[in-house]
Parts: sequence; structure tokens; C-alpha cells
Amino acid sequence: MDERLKRQLAFALEIDKEKNVFRQTHLSGQGRNENDAEHAWHMAVMAYLLKEYANEEIDIAKTMIMCLIHDIVEIDAGDTYAYDPEAKKTQKEREQRAKERLFGMLPEDQREELTALFEEFEALQSPEARFVRAMDNLQPLLLNNSNNGGDWKAHGVSAEQVYARQRQTKAGSVILYEVTDDILQENVRKGNLKKAE
Amino acid sequence: MDERLKRQLAFALEIDKEKNVFRQTHLSGQGRNENDAEHAWHMAVMAYLLKEYANEEIDIAKTMIMCLIHDIVEIDAGDTYAYDPEAKKTQKEREQRAKERLFGMLPEDQREELTALFEEFEALQSPEARFVRAMDNLQPLLLNNSNNGGDWKAHGVSAEQVYARQRQTKAGSVILYEVTDDILQENVRKGNLKKAE
Repeated sequence: MDERLKRQLAFALEIDKEKNVFRQTHLSGQGRNENDAEHAWHMAVMAYLLKEYANEEIDIAKTMIMCLIHDIVEIDAGDTYAYDPEAKKTQKEREQRAKERLFGMLPEDQREELTALFEEFEALQSPEARFVRAMDNLQPLLLNNSNNGGDWKAHGVSAEQVYARQRQTKAGSVILYEVTDDILQENVRKGNLKKAE
Repeated sequence: MDERLKRQLAFALEIDKEKNVFRQTHLSGQGRNENDAEHAWHMAVMAYLLKEYANEEIDIAKTMIMCLIHDIVEIDAGDTYAYDPEAKKTQKEREQRAKERLFGMLPEDQREELTALFEEFEALQSPEARFVRAMDNLQPLLLNNSNNGGDWKAHGVSAEQVYARQRQTKAGSVILYEVTDDILQENVRKGNLKKAE
């Protein structure tokens, strides 16, 4: 087997570990915690089905691969809960090291390509990145809403905190942000999300 | 929220259940059983990274979405182990009903699109379908090989049975079939796969 293919297959095997990185979100039906690989799969399917709601024209292949790889760094860096300010402080540094080791397993051209896709996503620098962020927000929102806000209640998260993150959805899709706002308002009414003091 | 978006979001929530459909394959590192959503995610990333080895030119967006949705019917129909001839007998009928119910949740145009993608995959009617099948074979092969053939040993599967399935990879990628053959030969030598009588 040539060196290029050997590296690609070694990376393919390595990313299997993403299935062991668990998130705070629970599956629908009051299920177990979701892992990163499942989350990425779900986001990519949703991106495909909801692409008509993107604010700007998006390249759907680029959008899907960005969804699929956006959490690979968490194999080394671990999941950082969106509403954990302490963990957020060290997230960049942990993810930087992880990015170098993991994408560095690939042939040079693919290392560069996946690193660029990951960084573009992080910086929300393109229509695709903004739409992927919208999926990254909407996917756990659907699950959590289906579980009557259980994940927010478990962490005592406030409406203000959730809005600070979910508002990013607007940059990717105004229409999906309207749905998001409806869902959040309903959860505030039900007492699943604490109102601002 | 309009009817179209409501149907799309209901489908998005429903497919969350794919994360509860477990396969015979185990994760690397002698891990737990893999589920369909993880398997589909892994296949789609591999398809993107290995697309240069497809025998024919492929549309990568179509290839990825085909990977991502190819097992959705198993939410209702359950996983059918590749080497279980009894379960294989009823697979078509179970999957037909599942396809109608699940894709029927979507707006009509998307119901038609996903049904057509699924049927194209099943029939191996296009370069994309043949490459997706190659990924569907190669992905569990990498995991099982990393676990010293544990899944084959657990089911007493023969080299002949595995070759009958894995030979389909050749129609999608001659190069990846060569790798497959090398891996299988090595597992026969190690006694992980029983030789034909």
C-alpha cells in the first residue's frame, strides 16, 4: 500500500474515537448522552435537508464535510460544554494541539484542507461556516426541546446564556432563527429556561 | 411555522432514533457495538477523504448524503447482519415499509429525493452508489481488523462469506479492493477468518 493511502486509512481508523466523546445533550426520548460522531451525522443530514433556509448561497458538499469534521479535535481536547465558562478559557489551546496532531496524520494536502475547513468554521468566515454553526445550535435544541429542556434544567442554564449562543443562528439562517426563538420562548414560558434576573 | 418546515423538523427529530440501532461491528479498541448513525458519519468522512480512489468520477455531495441516509430505514426495520441469511430473507419487505413511513414524513419533493437516493444505493445503479457500497464494506472492515477480527470470530464467519460481500468493493474502487484483499488475506493467515472447507 502506498504511503498516502496508508496515512488516509490510519486517520480513518483514528477518528473512530470521536464516538467515545460524549456531550451534555441527551438523545430524544430521555435517552443517553449523545456523542460527537452522532451529533456531526445529525447536523450534516439536517444541513442537507434545510439548505433552502441558508441566508446566502452555500456549497452543500463543503457544508456537509464541515459539519462532519467540526468536532474531530475533541478526540484529544474533549467536549467543552457551551455554557461552561471555565472550560471555555482553555478550549482554544487544547483544540490547537489536537488539530495539529489529528489532521497531521493525513497527507499534506488533506491536512491543509481539513485544517482550513475547521478554522473557517471556528471563525464563521463564510456562508457555509455560518450555516454549519446554525446546525450546531439547532440540532441539540431540537433534542433538548423534545426532552422538555432537561439539559438546561440539569445545568441551571439561563435564557440569557442560551440566547447568547443561539443568536449566532441568525447569521446562518434568519428563518431558522425565528423557529429557534419560538422554541426558546416556549421553554421560558414552561419554566425550562430561567428568565434573566 | 409553515407546514414544509414543520415536516422537515419532525423528520430531523425522528431520525435521532438511528442512534439507537446497534450493529454487529464493535468500535476500535475492543469497544462497544457501533450504531447506525456513527457508522454513517464514519462512511461519509471516509468517502470524502478517499474519493480519489473511486473507479469513476463521483459527485461528492451526492455520495456523502447517500452515505448519511443509507441506513435510516433501519430505525423501523432494524439492522440486518450481513452474514445472517435468515434475516436477509425478510429485509426487503421490512425496509420497504420503513422507507414509506420515514421518508413520507418529509415534504413531497424531499420524500422523492431521499427515496430515490436510497433505492439507487440499494441497486448499485450509479458510480456514487458503488462507491458508497465500498465505504459500507471498508468502514467496518477497518474496525474489525483493528480488533483482530473479533466480530468474525464471534459469528464464526468464513472467508468465503466475507469475500462474497467485500468483492462488491471492486465495483466502486479497484484500489480499495486491493487493500481489502490484503487485509482479508492477513486475517485468514492469522486464523481470524475460517478458510473455505
